[in-house]
Order: sequence, then structure tokens, then C-alpha cells
Amino acid sequence: MNKEIKAGIIGGSGFTGLELVKILDMHKYVKVSFATSRTFKDLVVSEVFPSYKDHGTERLFFIDKPLKNNFEQIDIMFLCLPPLKSMEFLKNIPDGYDFKIIDVGSDFRIKDPEGYKYWYGTGHIMKDKLSDFVYGLTEINKEKIKKSRCVANPGCYPVSILLALAPILNSKMSIKDICIDSKSGVSGAGRKLKDEYLFSSLDNNFYAYSVAGHRHIGEIEQEIKNIYGEKILISFTPHLMPVNRGIFTAIYCKIKGISENDAGRICNIFKDFYKDKPFVKFTGSKIPQLKDVVGTNMCMVGMSLDGRTGTMKIFSVIDNLLKGAAGQAVQNMNVMMGLDEEEGLKFNGLF
Amino acid sequence: MNKEIKAGIIGGSGFTGLELVKILDMHKYVKVSFATSRTFKDLVVSEVFPSYKDHGTERLFFIDKPLKNNFEQIDIMFLCLPPLKSMEFLKNIPDGYDFKIIDVGSDFRIKDPEGYKYWYGTGHIMKDKLSDFVYGLTEINKEKIKKSRCVANPGCYPVSILLALAPILNSKMSIKDICIDSKSGVSGAGRKLKDEYLFSSLDNNFYAYSVAGHRHIGEIEQEIKNIYGEKILISFTPHLMPVNRGIFTAIYCKIKGISENDAGRICNIFKDFYKDKPFVKFTGSKIPQLKDVVGTNMCMVGMSLDGRTGTMKIFSVIDNLLKGAAGQAVQNMNVMMGLDEEEGLKFNGLF
Amino acid sequence: MNKEIKAGIIGGSGFTGLELVKILDMHKYVKVSFATSRTFKDLVVSEVFPSYKDHGTERLFFIDKPLKNNFEQIDIMFLCLPPLKSMEFLKNIPDGYDFKIIDVGSDFRIKDPEGYKYWYGTGHIMKDKLSDFVYGLTEINKEKIKKSRCVANPGCYPVSILLALAPILNSKMSIKDICIDSKSGVSGAGRKLKDEYLFSSLDNNFYAYSVAGHRHIGEIEQEIKNIYGEKILISFTPHLMPVNRGIFTAIYCKIKGISENDAGRICNIFKDFYKDKPFVKFTGSKIPQLKDVVGTNMCMVGMSLDGRTGTMKIFSVIDNLLKGAAGQAVQNMNVMMGLDEEEGLKFNGLF
Amino acid sequence: MNKEIKAGIIGGSGFTGLELVKILDMHKYVKVSFATSRTFKDLVVSEVFPSYKDHGTERLFFIDKPLKNNFEQIDIMFLCLPPLKSMEFLKNIPDGYDFKIIDVGSDFRIKDPEGYKYWYGTGHIMKDKLSDFVYGLTEINKEKIKKSRCVANPGCYPVSILLALAPILNSKMSIKDICIDSKSGVSGAGRKLKDEYLFSSLDNNFYAYSVAGHRHIGEIEQEIKNIYGEKILISFTPHLMPVNRGIFTAIYCKIKGISENDAGRICNIFKDFYKDKPFVKFTGSKIPQLKDVVGTNMCMVGMSLDGRTGTMKIFSVIDNLLKGAAGQAVQNMNVMMGLDEEEGLKFNGLF
Repeated sequence: MNKEIKAGIIGGSGFTGLELVKILDMHKYVKVSFATSRTFKDLVVSEVFPSYKDHGTERLFFIDKPLKNNFEQIDIMFLCLPPLKSMEFLKNIPDGYDFKIIDVGSDFRIKDPEGYKYWYGTGHIMKDKLSDFVYGLTEINKEKIKKSRCVANPGCYPVSILLALAPILNSKMSIKDICIDSKSGVSGAGRKLKDEYLFSSLDNNFYAYSVAGHRHIGEIEQEIKNIYGEKILISFTPHLMPVNRGIFTAIYCKIKGISENDAGRICNIFKDFYKDKPFVKFTGSKIPQLKDVVGTNMCMVGMSLDGRTGTMKIFSVIDNLLKGAAGQAVQNMNVMMGLDEEEGLKFNGLF
Repeated sequence: MNKEIKAGIIGGSGFTGLELVKILDMHKYVKVSFATSRTFKDLVVSEVFPSYKDHGTERLFFIDKPLKNNFEQIDIMFLCLPPLKSMEFLKNIPDGYDFKIIDVGSDFRIKDPEGYKYWYGTGHIMKDKLSDFVYGLTEINKEKIKKSRCVANPGCYPVSILLALAPILNSKMSIKDICIDSKSGVSGAGRKLKDEYLFSSLDNNFYAYSVAGHRHIGEIEQEIKNIYGEKILISFTPHLMPVNRGIFTAIYCKIKGISENDAGRICNIFKDFYKDKPFVKFTGSKIPQLKDVVGTNMCMVGMSLDGRTGTMKIFSVIDNLLKGAAGQAVQNMNVMMGLDEEEGLKFNGLF
Repeated sequence: MNKEIKAGIIGGSGFTGLELVKILDMHKYVKVSFATSRTFKDLVVSEVFPSYKDHGTERLFFIDKPLKNNFEQIDIMFLCLPPLKSMEFLKNIPDGYDFKIIDVGSDFRIKDPEGYKYWYGTGHIMKDKLSDFVYGLTEINKEKIKKSRCVANPGCYPVSILLALAPILNSKMSIKDICIDSKSGVSGAGRKLKDEYLFSSLDNNFYAYSVAGHRHIGEIEQEIKNIYGEKILISFTPHLMPVNRGIFTAIYCKIKGISENDAGRICNIFKDFYKDKPFVKFTGSKIPQLKDVVGTNMCMVGMSLDGRTGTMKIFSVIDNLLKGAAGQAVQNMNVMMGLDEEEGLKFNGLF
Repeated sequence: MNKEIKAGIIGGSGFTGLELVKILDMHKYVKVSFATSRTFKDLVVSEVFPSYKDHGTERLFFIDKPLKNNFEQIDIMFLCLPPLKSMEFLKNIPDGYDFKIIDVGSDFRIKDPEGYKYWYGTGHIMKDKLSDFVYGLTEINKEKIKKSRCVANPGCYPVSILLALAPILNSKMSIKDICIDSKSGVSGAGRKLKDEYLFSSLDNNFYAYSVAGHRHIGEIEQEIKNIYGEKILISFTPHLMPVNRGIFTAIYCKIKGISENDAGRICNIFKDFYKDKPFVKFTGSKIPQLKDVVGTNMCMVGMSLDGRTGTMKIFSVIDNLLKGAAGQAVQNMNVMMGLDEEEGLKFNGLF
């Protein structure tokens, strides 16, 4: 019999934090010990967010910030904070606690402090801790995650991109060029009051953003190098589409010496790589659609070879708040805690 | 320890049938023994509907129609068929089986054969069985459902309307007039290929339909009479709104001798009635929104008294595929099988 | 040959103001002399709103506020300002100008200062001017508008409600009860940064608001009395639906002594009333849909008699930014300026 | 004074045909002489499509097919028919008529019969007429269009792609690679009853289609060669997004020897090329959004140089039914008839 795991959530009222509260609320072996929210402090979660049903016997309410007794109770802490805020928060926690930490934010993903500064525009304030955090893409780093105290949960775009690319990178094909065109639902931007996220701005609209360079590039190139063994510079362009949840990624790879005859062999490379990875499914030439994964923790990947131009097209879809954030975090937690990787994450999509 | 309940689903690939497959797939005490689909027979469910994750050890596939051995295996059968089809199906089942039956369709809701003919335009072919089917609104008929072999699951609009009206009907106030304006998402119409359900027809559109009389009126007036003791004729107008799931119902009641001073007393009537009903929540004058319940089995009800015109406004929201169909059916199953009413239905909404 | 009419627009960058700029830009006899916007002052309109094509030879830019020379140039001024702001603005204009004025805002619609205070929660600061402003529903007050200097453009809900009710009110039937359920697109709320107008809040959502009493009731009851001759208190409930533009109104009237046999006679009452009213179309029992009018200046009205409950159901649809605001204002301008009522307003909808 | 131009429309009730009817209805110098529709023959257009306001004095109704007297009346004929149907139709028209022809369909775009067969899977039945049809992208072939009797209106994707690429192709830069990722609204697929175009299939969804090769590639590569002088094979992937109208195209070009220092120079290349082209607007590094052009005949183009990977990113947006179909056709008609290129096309977008 597993003992109950007590979890604390820092930043529990953003899209990701709330999603985490909902998943953990239903997790057989976990109890949410506390969740913080400055905006909604002292309010009951199910009052602020009525679609949260609050199944526990006691009603969960948001606290302003964790105190000593909160830290003492928990086995694991999730941080769902904007850039720079995770490291500020961690810097101020007194030494001596031994709970595990999953940073769902972006502060500990890039290991090179110079790289961090380049992409985030500011110096890192906990450089010496960067290497403590394992890059938390379970499908790639499961063994390391199992043994780690701290995990840096990957960004939503990187999850959709790295899971799609990993089989090819790992197979040591000779990759000449990687061009990535990703499209995200608006929840990827967080719960922000901006004119561009209004219904009247986004409905029936579609646009590119950060075309000159998006922060996730640093993280993607770092992990490509870790798998492929050498650096590949990628072209990456994110777009916003008029949907609530989900990322659709198209990757156009130029690969030396492939032709359409290689399709079968390459499909096997994907299948082999994803074997025993319960949250990735390869659909071959039947390209997955966004709605296939919304509401689930799955990443689905499809592939098509264009012989005319020597292009391998890889398509992947995830729910940005689940496999791209909160679901991925719980998957990591399961591994860190010695639970079944799928525990609490076996939900079917809504439609 | 509960023994495993084996369920058969007739019509498993429509919106409601599929929703039922998904819920039962995750239900701790149930195994889907078979699901039928003419369109998708012999295909694996998770291939046809990729968002269904298929957590069982064996993969579920659709069968064309149930055979003798299918009938022998099951403890309960759900029928998710269009009007007239449930009775045709049941008429052809040989005698001698004792599995329980939940008709999620509309054939056994109206108990008066004349009423059935009036609203459905055709004679009923199993008139003598009509009284065998308990009207399956758990919040009203729980005790009867517990003891019944057959249940007629209510229509989606009636669920949203009857749960909102029941406290008032039950309190024996003097009701002069009931005017109902309901709005449904497009999944309420089923998976039909019609011009009016195309994205280009429905996006940024809104319209009324069946304004001269909708079939659910018969069922609603029958149950109003059962609770209130006398017949009240209702005005009911359904609309289609550009959303996938959910019903938003506004009920405008004229009630003799009420004023705004009665608000507190009337709120208590609602609260008392919903006490111990885990799937209904009264929100008082804070009117619930559609998204509060989408993805859950909840019905939320709000109320406002308009003293100027002597109107009580009652608003209710449900997810038409859950509390309005498949979730309601599982709730009934739980009661019929002696399980906890909430078993397998404690999911939080998506947002 | 008409001389060129010079128009000034106060508040040109809100949804309504911008719509007005667009319509007048294409109007054969009008030139936009200036448009104000505090937020976008000194910026070129087509840069701020790229879908505005700026067909004039000179490029229009927003000015902060009008100066003496602006006032001297114009023949007509449109005010597109939030509640209370129109009267504040007009109070500060020096005497002596003779340009015509159309207040597209809400300050001069209610003629009774007590009524104004009741619905807007504050005293009117130009009480003596209230009677100068003709209530600008062209279909009702065309002759008065023709001779007036000042017009109070009606609210969006009132346009959809009064045009639907006018034939019945005018026919002197004996009306017992009027219950109104309206649904609006989000542009009706103006360009406001609020959490409830975010894409993630509104997509796949639907909700009621101001259920305890909406400001437009005062204006609607005032005009009902003007047409019907006596006061009728209405129950009115507005809702927000996940679309950008448009209002769908359902009106449920109890009328003494009508039965389904009266359908033909009542249809003729509607047809007669709308004759020679180019922007209202009666569709009989074929209920109009929202998309029939979006992008046009039309109001479409349908009707159905429910003999069972003695209810007349009247449905109307308008584009809230056109017939409900800017289009209605231009229609009034045409009448005030002696132009063809339809000039510059003959556009077909988008789909 | 221009004489009235009489136009006939073959296929007037599809999305494109209806859009054409609407535009021509408002065109100062054109009268729609007839419009055909098999589905809606003998019905009045404004009854079938209520958002069409029918401003002419006589009411337009659909005819089944044109007869001798119809052909004799018209100055120009538009064909809005599915693949293969334009050539079948034209083959059966008797000789001797001299009206001009614009094929808005796809039969006469590809000039090489082998190429046609490759992309459309069937032999062309009017090979000798292929060269009579000028490829109708006005911005590229204006002089030829002016003198031609027959024009092949370009495909919607090709319009968005060729207008974006033309400045670069024309400047004779050394292009190494062109990778195109386009996203279209659902109206691009025509008014088709397919499961994948249902609201419940498309809302909150996004997917790629024809990933193994889309028919428009042939047309795009043909025109690239015409401008650039040599053949470039392109990788092209179309997607469907949950919007009604509009195409968003991202083009990723590898160009030899460019760096970020070239940005200014390259911007000037775009600006120079689009000078005197009223329906294309270059927005520099401020990338245009879909909604900037929906409801207009504009194509907007933005550009960003990615120095890290040597990629030029070009983004373009059009309304697929206007600049991508009916608007483009009217633009061609204006040029063929000696009218101002912008006549009847100066509309502002809806929002």
C-alpha cells in the first residue's frame, strides 16, 4: 500500500496551476496540502473556479504564501510561476527541507547560464543550482528523473517538438536542416489580460508571434544536442490559433539521402523509439489532429516523406496544459515517487 | 469487494454512446463487454476515436450487433439509439434475460401512449412495457430507480429544466406561468451530417428551432405534473448556440404573491431540496455559466427575483452529454447496482 | 448634386466609433473631418486598425480632442462615448455652433430625469436638453428625426426589441405580459479588457448577466409606452454568447384572446407595419438566424403562435454594431440630412 | 460614362459564386444578368441566402442552366465550378459568342497538360485552349490580362504564396530552399457536407491535410518558374484552422549569403515591387494577422530575417473568398473591361 503523498503548489490559480490542482485532486495517492494564489488568497478553490468539484472531504482554499508548517508537511512541491519567479522563490526558502521539487516554470531548463541570459534577457541568480535540475521530459530522461530531487519541467513547445524529433535524432541520420512551425491555443499564454487575448481579437483570427526568436529555442537546441550529439540550429516560429488548448507542431526536416522508399524503415524507427512510452503514440502517415489529444496527457506523432523535395514532415499534437505542462509534471512526479508512470493520468479526451 | 459489472452498449459510436464508453472505461467496477456500431463495426474504438485512450488490457472494438453470447455475459445494457429504435431493438430480444436496461434514448420516457403519439408522431409498439421503465432523473426518483430493472434516461433539456424547477414545484407555490428559453451546444443534435451543423453555418451564428413545439415538452409536462400534482402547460423554445457541449436554460416563472423580500426564504427552498444530491449545486443569485459544468456531471442552478414584474428567473447549466445523457445514465446505473451514486463520475471540468 | 457633408466623430477607436469611421469612409456624400481617440491620438487609423483601408486621398489620423477649427468645419457630430461622457462633453462645447448631433451613447435616451437616475445611478447634468434629443429609432420616429438637430441613437438591445414589438404595440392588441430573453455578441460590451471577455473565458461558454435589471429596460419601457399608449412592465434578461457581433432576441408575449387561427391576420399586421421600412424584414414563421444580418444594417423579425399556452413568440436579429449602433446612426444622419435613408448602408453580409 | 456590363455566373450558390454575386450586386458598372444553381434553381437568391440584400430593382433568382438568350446578353461570364467542370461546361458552349470568360475554378491554371494530369489525376479535355487563358494574378500579369479574352483565376493558396514570394523571385536572389506552411479557414473547402467540416469536428481543432502533395503545388511551381526563370521545387503543407474565412501563409526561404544586415535592403525590394499594386500591402517586420484582411480584397505581407539559421520568413494573409477567389476575379474583370482596378472592391473589413 502506498502512503499518501502530500503536495504543495506554488501559483495554483494560473491555467497550469489550476490544472495541476485538478489532476492531483483525483490522483489516488496524492493529497494537495496547500495551493497558493495571491489574487484569490483565502478563497475556496471551487468557489473561484466552479468547474473544480473539490472531491476531498475538506474544502481546499488558496493561501497567500507557504509558511514553515506548510513546508514541513509536504513531500513534493510544484512551482507554477512566471519566468524569474521560481528562482526568486527558491532562493528564499530556508535550507533543511528535503521535499522534492518540480519547477513547471522556465527558470531551470537551460543549463548554460550564458544561454539563459541570451534567451531570457537577464542573469540567472541560482547558477550553481542549474545542474541539480534534471530536464523533465520523461520519455528522454526517465532514469535520471527517477533518482533526482529536482526536475525542470519542459516548455510546452519543446515537449511537442522534442518528442517528435527524438527518434530521428537518436537514429543518427544526417540532418541538414530543421524548420519548425508551431501553433498554440491561447491558454499557452497564461491567464493574462491583454487586448490580443480578447475573444474579439482572437476569434476567427490567427497570427504569428515572436518571429524574431522565441525563448523556447534555447531549450530545444540544448536537448537536440544532448540527443543528437552535435548542435543543430533550428528555425522556429510560434503562432496563436483561436482555440483554448493544444499545440499543433509541423517539423520540416531535410535529411541527406532519404527517398520515399525509406518510409517503412523510418516508421519503424519511430515505433521502436516510442515502445514502452505510454504517453506517445505514432500514427504513421495518418496525421493526428489537435482534438485527438485535447483533454489527455498524450503526444501523438505522424510522419510523411516528401520525395520531391527530400523533406521529412513530422507532425505532433499535445494538450499544452497537460502533456505540455501539468500532466507532464505529474508524470514526472509519478516517476520520482516510484509510482506507475500513468497513475492519475489515464483520462480520455472530452470528445 | 464489488464484483465486476459487465456492460453492453447498443449504439456506441454516437456522441452519447462514445461518451458512455469513455466513462465506463474509467469506472472502477465496470467493464465494457461490447459496444455496437454499424458504421464502424470491426474497428478498434481508439483507432476510430483517437482521443479514447483504451486503458483496458484488451482493446475494445465495435461489433455490428449483439449475439446470444453477448446478451448472456452482461449485467446491464445501455441503449443509445435514435427515436423509435430502442423499442424496435428491445422488441426483438428473446425473453429470458435478466440484465438491467437503461434506455438513453427517448422511447420510454412518456408514459401515456397518446402523449407519445402526439409528440413523436407515431404509435408506440411496446405500450405494455411503458410502465416498466422508471423515469430516470435520479434526483427525483432515486428510490424507484434503486428497485427497477428498466430505466428511461431523461432528455437533455428536461434534465436542465426539471432539476431547476423541482424545488419550486415541490414547495407547492402557486405557479401562474412557466416560460422556458433553452440554448444547446451542437452535440445535442447528435453526430449528423446536416448543412446547419457545419462549422461555416454555426460559427458566429445562433438560432431558434422547433419553435412551434419540441418533443421534450411532453416529457417535461408529465414530470411537472408528477411533482406538482397538477398539470401546467409550459412554453418552451430551444436554440442552438455555437458551442460543442452544454445546455443553458433560463426559466421565467410567474408566481402568485411573491416579492423580492421572499428571496432568502426561496433560496432556502432550493438549498433544502438539493441537500444530499451530489450532482446539483445551487449558486443563489450568482448565476452559473455554461463552462462551470462542461466536462462534469454537475447541474448548477442560480435564481433571481424580479420584483417589478413578479418574475422568478431560474437559470441552470449542464453538460448535455454528461448530466444530460451518458453521465446521468451512469448515475442511474450506480444506483441500480447498489454502488455509490458518484462512482466514476467525480471528474473536474476541463477549464 | 449633394454637397459634401463633413462629419466629426468623438470616440473613434471603440468598436462603434471605428465602425462609424468605416461606414462614413465609403459614404458617397460624407467626409470624416476628424475622429478623436485618446488612446491612439496622432496615429493613422489604418495603422492602428489594418482592416480599415483608408480610401480617401488623405490619410485619416486620430486627434486627441476637437478644437475650435474642428467644430467650425463640421455639419454633423457623432458621439460614441461611454455612459455619462456624452453629456460631460456637450456641456463643455461653447454655444453658437449649429452642426447636428447624434449621440450614439446612452445619455439622452431616457427623457425622464428620475428614470435616468434610477437606471444609471446618477443625476443627469443636462436635464433641460433631454427633450431636444429625438429618440432615434428611424422606423418609429422618422418624421421627427427629419426635423431635429439632435438625435439620441437607441441602445442595441432596444433596437432589436422595439422593432420586433412595434407592430403589436401599434395594433392595440391586449398585451398581458412581455418576457424578453436576449443574447448578444461580445462586441456589445465595447473594447474592454476584462477577464470575462477573454477568449479563454468566452469560447464555448454562455452566460446571463445583469439579471437583476439592465439599464436598457428604462429606454424600452419608455418607448413601449409611447407606442402603446400605456405603460407595460417588461421582464428582460441579457446573455453573452460566444460570437463577435449580433443580437438574437426572443420575446414571449401573452396576448388576450389569440389562438393559432389568428396567425395569418397577425402576420399581416407585421407586414403592413414594416412596409416602406427598408431595414426591417418580416420572415413569418421562418425564424431568422443571427448570421442572416451580421455585416448588414438589417433587422429581421420572425413570429410563431403557440396556441397551447397562448404565447406569441417574436424573434429578431440585428448586427449590434450596425443596426444596433453605427449603422442606425448613419441611417438617422441620412434622414436628418435629407439623403436617401439607405445611402451608404446597402451592404451585403459577409457570408 | 461607362455602359452597364452584364455578367453571367455559372455556379452561383457555392461560397465563391455567392460572394461574386454579392460583390457584383454592389458594383457600380455591373449587372448580374443571371446566376445558375442546380440546388436552388428557380429560388430567389435573397430567400436562399438572407444576408444577400438584393439591392437591384428586380429580384435575382437562380436559374438551372444558361440558355441561348442568356449567352447573348452577357459581356462576361464567371465560372465557379469544381475541378473538371469548367472545361466540360465550356466544351459544350456553341461557337460564336464573344463574351469574356473568367474561370474561377482550377481547370485552366496549369498550362502543361502533363502537369495537369499529374496533379489532377485525369487528362485535360481542352488542351488546345489552355494557352488562351492568362494566369489571372493581376499583380503579376496585369498587361496580359488587359488584352485577354480568357483568364484563369488563381487558386487561393497560390495567391497568398505567389504575392509573398514574387518580390524575392523577381529580384533574382539565389534561393536555396522554399518551405511553405499554409493555414486555411473552412470556407476554402467549399460548401461540402463532410464529417470533418462539422462544427463539432472543427471547433477547437486544427489539422494538416494533403500532406503528401496538394494540387496547388503544380500551379505555384509553374508561376515561380515564370517569374524566377528556373524551376524551384517547393515543400507545401496546407492546414485547416477553426475559422470561416482567410488564409495565413508562412514561407521559410533559405537564401544564399544573406544576413540580418540585409533587412533594410530587402524591405525595399518588397516595397518597390508592391508599389502601384493597390491590393498588396507590405508591413515590414510587423507581421500581419488574419483579421487584418478578412472582409477585404487585400493581401498583406510581412517579413523577418533569422540570421542564426539564414532563413527569410515571409508571412502573408488574404481572405480566401475575396483576394483568394471572387475579389480576385472582379479585380481581373475590372482590368479586362478597362475599369479602375479597385472599382467595387474598396470595402473595409468587418472588424
